[in-house]
Amino acid sequence: MSTVLTQTADIAEAVRHMAHKARAAARQLATLNGQQKNAALVRMAEGLLAGQTAILAANAADVEAAKAGGLATAMIGRLTLTPAKIAAMAAGIREIAQQVDPVGQTIEAYERPNGLRIEKRRVPIGVIAIIYESRPNVTSDAAALCLKSSNACILRGGKESLQTNQAIAAVVRKALTDAGISSDAVQVLESPDRAAVGALVTAEGLVDLVIPRGGESLIRAVVEQATVPVIKHYKGVCHIYIDKDADPDMAVNVAYSAKVDGCAVCNTTECLLVHKDIAARVLPRLAARFRDAHVEMRSDTRSLGLLQNAKLANDDDWGREFLDLIIAIRQVNSMDEAIAHIDQYGSQHTDAIVTGNIGAAQKFVQQVDSASVMVNASTRWADGYEYGLGAEIGISTDKLHARGPMGAADLCTYKFIVTGNGHIRA
Amino acid sequence: MSTVLTQTADIAEAVRHMAHKARAAARQLATLNGQQKNAALVRMAEGLLAGQTAILAANAADVEAAKAGGLATAMIGRLTLTPAKIAAMAAGIREIAQQVDPVGQTIEAYERPNGLRIEKRRVPIGVIAIIYESRPNVTSDAAALCLKSSNACILRGGKESLQTNQAIAAVVRKALTDAGISSDAVQVLESPDRAAVGALVTAEGLVDLVIPRGGESLIRAVVEQATVPVIKHYKGVCHIYIDKDADPDMAVNVAYSAKVDGCAVCNTTECLLVHKDIAARVLPRLAARFRDAHVEMRSDTRSLGLLQNAKLANDDDWGREFLDLIIAIRQVNSMDEAIAHIDQYGSQHTDAIVTGNIGAAQKFVQQVDSASVMVNASTRWADGYEYGLGAEIGISTDKLHARGPMGAADLCTYKFIVTGNGHIRA
Repeated sequence: MSTVLTQTADIAEAVRHMAHKARAAARQLATLNGQQKNAALVRMAEGLLAGQTAILAANAADVEAAKAGGLATAMIGRLTLTPAKIAAMAAGIREIAQQVDPVGQTIEAYERPNGLRIEKRRVPIGVIAIIYESRPNVTSDAAALCLKSSNACILRGGKESLQTNQAIAAVVRKALTDAGISSDAVQVLESPDRAAVGALVTAEGLVDLVIPRGGESLIRAVVEQATVPVIKHYKGVCHIYIDKDADPDMAVNVAYSAKVDGCAVCNTTECLLVHKDIAARVLPRLAARFRDAHVEMRSDTRSLGLLQNAKLANDDDWGREFLDLIIAIRQVNSMDEAIAHIDQYGSQHTDAIVTGNIGAAQKFVQQVDSASVMVNASTRWADGYEYGLGAEIGISTDKLHARGPMGAADLCTYKFIVTGNGHIRA
Repeated sequence: MSTVLTQTADIAEAVRHMAHKARAAARQLATLNGQQKNAALVRMAEGLLAGQTAILAANAADVEAAKAGGLATAMIGRLTLTPAKIAAMAAGIREIAQQVDPVGQTIEAYERPNGLRIEKRRVPIGVIAIIYESRPNVTSDAAALCLKSSNACILRGGKESLQTNQAIAAVVRKALTDAGISSDAVQVLESPDRAAVGALVTAEGLVDLVIPRGGESLIRAVVEQATVPVIKHYKGVCHIYIDKDADPDMAVNVAYSAKVDGCAVCNTTECLLVHKDIAARVLPRLAARFRDAHVEMRSDTRSLGLLQNAKLANDDDWGREFLDLIIAIRQVNSMDEAIAHIDQYGSQHTDAIVTGNIGAAQKFVQQVDSASVMVNASTRWADGYEYGLGAEIGISTDKLHARGPMGAADLCTYKFIVTGNGHIRA
């Protein structure tokens, strides 16, 4: 056997060993009540603040190495922790502690005609692997949400953030131990080797779910390797369709805010579709506001005359996730054309209609196949916290299991509990 | 390019073409109301009865070829249709027509403090691929359940059943057309080439879900290739634990029936775990009844003296799916030992406890990580129809999306519909 193969086998064995420990921890987690979990969460939050110096020192070392390695500035920004960011991480965990415990909730319960009682009860999934980039806040968020939902987790962050993640995990694991919970409930996969990820996402029977968070290439690589189920969070290419029966003021405000108030997030609006009958009433005003906010407009030929300062869009500007102060704008002859555009170019994340016509709203809601469909509201509302789900583990662009913003309850499955009195099926 | 590669590329192209047609049909299905779908279902049921002669002729040709090809007798049995089986298929479809329409149901609806209305609404998944063995009844069941849930489907049955499936699909598709629904909503993948399955389960963006139904090797092959999400229906290795506080009469009746009244199905009991303190009161009586029913008992050493006619179990009898009049029997010193046994050898399908002790029942229900956990009831109750879900597409042994018996509602996803009044998130 070659050295590489030996190493790969060793890594796979180490990953399976972690997963076995995680399973054992998951069995304990399933027996905890909400108070016990919340007590551990509060200790985690306190620990992050108390352990700030060590975490910041580890992070400084990671950042220095990343800079020396030539990591892009935006990535350095995400990697870098500050006292304020750590305080926000701690505050996020405290909020999770205050949420309702999803585990043990009765989803449905009823009696069958033969007297059998059926209960569908929410229970943890088991062991969840989370694979993400060099964003240390994900380490604490994911650990807290998995604990809240009584799942053990194996965390695999970007290699540039390893020391930071180890420092955060040390705090988290001490909080677990101090609260009487196995520290194996939260483990950090430290091997930088890609084979480690491969072993993790194929550990059927040990790992129950894989959640990749990050860019499309990371997610695709995980999906292609995985035999364990994956929930994906692909990009957001969100649209607003301004219907002919829209209130022009509302349309201008919603479209403006959906781009300008947060242009680099997945629920920002990347493309405006405007009904031809209202274009002259909204596009010039919108152009003026976008210009003042330094938004670059990429327009179809037909709208150029209504959009001062716009440039002509390229074909690949439709369906593009700009994540910047850039917006594509196109006129349509009908709502059907708008829906067809969204169907072709959208990412099934979030799409909105602005209209005063209830029939138009109903049709749009029914025919647009996206996780969130907004009526007279900005696409920026697509967010677990705004939906009242509490902190979110991400926004699923999958249709299976969880769709759209995912909170702690979405990290649960259910079991059927069937109670009889000696019932046999003869 | 070699001929094989060219053929593979052609097959992949043909599969993608089918999937595109299915997507277009799915868009139409999403706009249908329950009455329109039920009218088509009733036409399907009528069509199966009216078209019986052609279906039986096609089936006779399939069966003849299968016999000539040396297919196993049990498989021939599953492949062979009779007028009674066709009547049962038609009756099953009529029942599906009478079920509540899951599509469009409001799962949750609430208003946020800022006045945004959030509705979580059940909607179809889109395009579902179903891959199964040579069981023609699955063709009509799956088509009916997918239509009920407004999903388009691509059906890929075993190659031995191709002519039968084509004959059934012709009836189904005519019923769709006659009801004003695109016949592309139900398509049969006819290529016997394995590359066709590969193309189907990797058609991301076109196919939303793959459901393999059949033996473990078929399912594993699909899982390994798939990049589209898969819901699995692996084997059932169901246990009954007879607690020390069980009523002995109830324990004997439930254990006997769970094996004898249906021994070849996935929810039959394959292994009995008996607390040592009650073993002497139940095992001899059970042995007498099992002996009369010609059930082969495979016992641990310790129970041999209590089980007349039992033979010593091999190591591989624990965790084995016999699907026959065979049962494994083992004594345990505690409930913890029973739970550990189920954890090690079970298949997370269905496991039961018989006990009069409420604390024991609660602990078992909480700690046994199975899709269905029974208290004082036979494992044989694990069934979509018995749970009131209507006809089932199968029993999921996965934890993601759907777990346990899956009905039409489990072939749905949801979308968030967010309604504001010009709400912006500034």
